Amino acid sequence: MTDRSAAVAELVASLPEGVVATSPESLEKYRMDWAKDPDAGMPCAAVRAQSPEHVQVAVRWAASHGIPVVPRGAGTGLSGGASAIDAGLVISLERMTTIEIDPAARCAIVEPGAFNADVKKAAAEHGLWYPPDPSSFEICSIGGNVATNAGGLCCVKYGVTTDYVLGLDVVLADGRLITLGGKQIKDVAGLSLLKLFVGSEGTLGIVTRATLRLVPAQLAPSTLVATFDSVRAAADAVVAMGRLVRASMVELMDKPTVNQVEDFQPMGLDRDRALLLVQSDAPEGAREGEMAVIEKACRDAGAADVFVTHDPAEGASFVQARRLAFPAAEAAGALLLEDVGVEVPLLPELVARIEQVGADRGVDVVCVAHAGDGNTHPIVMYDAANADSTARARAAFEDILTAAIELGGTITGEHGVGRLKRDALPAMLGPDVMELNQRVKDALDPQGILNPGAVLAARS
Amino acid sequence: MTDRSAAVAELVASLPEGVVATSPESLEKYRMDWAKDPDAGMPCAAVRAQSPEHVQVAVRWAASHGIPVVPRGAGTGLSGGASAIDAGLVISLERMTTIEIDPAARCAIVEPGAFNADVKKAAAEHGLWYPPDPSSFEICSIGGNVATNAGGLCCVKYGVTTDYVLGLDVVLADGRLITLGGKQIKDVAGLSLLKLFVGSEGTLGIVTRATLRLVPAQLAPSTLVATFDSVRAAADAVVAMGRLVRASMVELMDKPTVNQVEDFQPMGLDRDRALLLVQSDAPEGAREGEMAVIEKACRDAGAADVFVTHDPAEGASFVQARRLAFPAAEAAGALLLEDVGVEVPLLPELVARIEQVGADRGVDVVCVAHAGDGNTHPIVMYDAANADSTARARAAFEDILTAAIELGGTITGEHGVGRLKRDALPAMLGPDVMELNQRVKDALDPQGILNPGAVLAARS
Repeated sequence: MTDRSAAVAELVASLPEGVVATSPESLEKYRMDWAKDPDAGMPCAAVRAQSPEHVQVAVRWAASHGIPVVPRGAGTGLSGGASAIDAGLVISLERMTTIEIDPAARCAIVEPGAFNADVKKAAAEHGLWYPPDPSSFEICSIGGNVATNAGGLCCVKYGVTTDYVLGLDVVLADGRLITLGGKQIKDVAGLSLLKLFVGSEGTLGIVTRATLRLVPAQLAPSTLVATFDSVRAAADAVVAMGRLVRASMVELMDKPTVNQVEDFQPMGLDRDRALLLVQSDAPEGAREGEMAVIEKACRDAGAADVFVTHDPAEGASFVQARRLAFPAAEAAGALLLEDVGVEVPLLPELVARIEQVGADRGVDVVCVAHAGDGNTHPIVMYDAANADSTARARAAFEDILTAAIELGGTITGEHGVGRLKRDALPAMLGPDVMELNQRVKDALDPQGILNPGAVLAARS
Repeated sequence: MTDRSAAVAELVASLPEGVVATSPESLEKYRMDWAKDPDAGMPCAAVRAQSPEHVQVAVRWAASHGIPVVPRGAGTGLSGGASAIDAGLVISLERMTTIEIDPAARCAIVEPGAFNADVKKAAAEHGLWYPPDPSSFEICSIGGNVATNAGGLCCVKYGVTTDYVLGLDVVLADGRLITLGGKQIKDVAGLSLLKLFVGSEGTLGIVTRATLRLVPAQLAPSTLVATFDSVRAAADAVVAMGRLVRASMVELMDKPTVNQVEDFQPMGLDRDRALLLVQSDAPEGAREGEMAVIEKACRDAGAADVFVTHDPAEGASFVQARRLAFPAAEAAGALLLEDVGVEVPLLPELVARIEQVGADRGVDVVCVAHAGDGNTHPIVMYDAANADSTARARAAFEDILTAAIELGGTITGEHGVGRLKRDALPAMLGPDVMELNQRVKDALDPQGILNPGAVLAARS
């Protein structure tokens, strides 16, 4: 018996039966997230925690043996933040799914494995709403949302995950369990550690409970769909309307994306043009004026066609088309998914550069965007069986990251750095900010066992 | 010539004429903020920086001599965060007041000495709005707002300072100048250092520029004023309306506060009752319904009188009365100002406990609150010439902090810990979270020269 297998036996013995998975077959599903990181390793074990105490036991075990820990929610991450490490430990939060709503304090107290959609559902039963809505909201977990500071479609008006996190329970690198914040809305006592843990991608601690702010239910939105001959014209419309109104959704699909979605599930979209999808949830009285401003911005930017509906179900079908963009691209072949963002006025420039990268590298780059936030998801398509195609796709991927950095933007707006964008981070942040990141990481995880290799390079 | 005066001469020589103040008379104004900390020291010099480079020069000088640095904005802080340290350096940002508006990106690029009100004014010229509005907004600086993560009256609907900070330039403890974030709205690249610096009260770095998110101009609000026989009944109304609507302002003044304001500036307020001030900025169409919900909540909670006005000027006069609460209390005598907060449903319990503390300790405690956020400002009045009165006031101050902690709340919702609440922080956060605060502080300021004694104890 090797040292590692003796250690694993010790772990198995220290937790209830069924909590620790060790067989290669059962570990296979804990190796990768949706990024399908080819460098993902085979963990020595996966702890399917059922309580904060299980997480503490597992982390203490890992710390005592110097074994790296990769925390994992629903595994829908898109940056390889949950790629397993060879012979490391995976701690899965999938079994911790409790959701409790406190309607008087207007918050949800949620275990990390609970799905975003289930939090929304539980809140809706009390006439309340949890706004953050990643495209994957039906199958992604709150723990992952907190770890990546996830965004989504309604962020353009309602903000991102960090704006809704009031409290966190976190297991630290040495196994201690701490509570930060609570149900109080305003709290400036001590450093903003609560906000520091949000978006830390499991590198500083493991969230075992989140207290999330809820707001009154959203009004049923009106929906505008506009088509444009160029994606740049659509982006121009986004910039123009953004100066005047706060739409509740501003999503952009370029022509290739529209075609992928139509191929995947025919919905009668116009295959010849880029599509802009805008919603307004302004109250009656303000609604008509807001929709008029949005429509005018589209027409002024040269929209070929504008369609407006006040029927929520009809509007939802267009949103569904938008949500299908990623599954449709996946069905179309191998892909590299980006998440670059810029200040909104530079969106037209960014989408133009993305198109140019595709042309220059001779690869198909389709692009969908949370346009109102300046956050785009270019998707580089390639033929995985063809080495040349693969190489060109990787080069295009890098070019797009470089374009975002050159425009003063970000290499990741909402998916996180994970492992796939780690090597691009220094070019964006520069040596001083990188060093500051490392100092904070070292202060909170001196042994370097929490998700090493995600965001920052693992110690050599 | 002592070592310190030789060092000061070196500092004076390294910066342009007029930047460094060294005379006792000119240093007097840099000793205290509004907390009037009796333990404030006499600095050896004050650098009135005119550029980030001046701040860098000053911090490098301080680091090389091991001299503590207290950064300072407009000096309106209420927790002694800017109390000078004997023979330490003050870095004042009062001369760095540039404001630039980027209407297309909807943000303001602001130097730290600019007043909050001037940012609002500059934004308004473009039809835009910077929401955070501390009561002192006309005379407090953005740098101080960022340092304390300042709140204000509109936070109940529009959030606090951190929700509007997109980017920061920060001079670190070793004098390096870094940039975090930018004009992009969504950015999750690297740890959330941006959010960590917000609310760090000058203990981690000195902000030399902030990029602030702006939103479309607020609609002119409608105003409801309700009077209640007890402050607890008013708090009950707040809890009830908070479940149903998002009012844009929910402020509470107890009867003693109403009387202090009337004494200070007669406005015809009802001296016999507590006053609740609620505004709605909902768009036309939704406005009437929202006001009806608010009015019903007040009447159900036993309001003696309810008055509604849609005249913005008339509404503003009530808001002005609320903003006078602190100056009126100051005019009435010596005071200790609190900033305790709890989850909203516990607000009635908190205000009841605050009243009880006053009765138990035999001191006047007046109370004004950002009620919709559960954030209260009890003010303990005392006779500074009377040792017994002073002692009872201090005991009452501690009792109120304890009450907030016992209710699971916070010792500071928006003013910051500073020096005056530092000793109460461990009781609230506990040893593990305190240690985590210290680790982050040590990681970013290993020498411990940045605002030592604020938030965390200075090294002994």
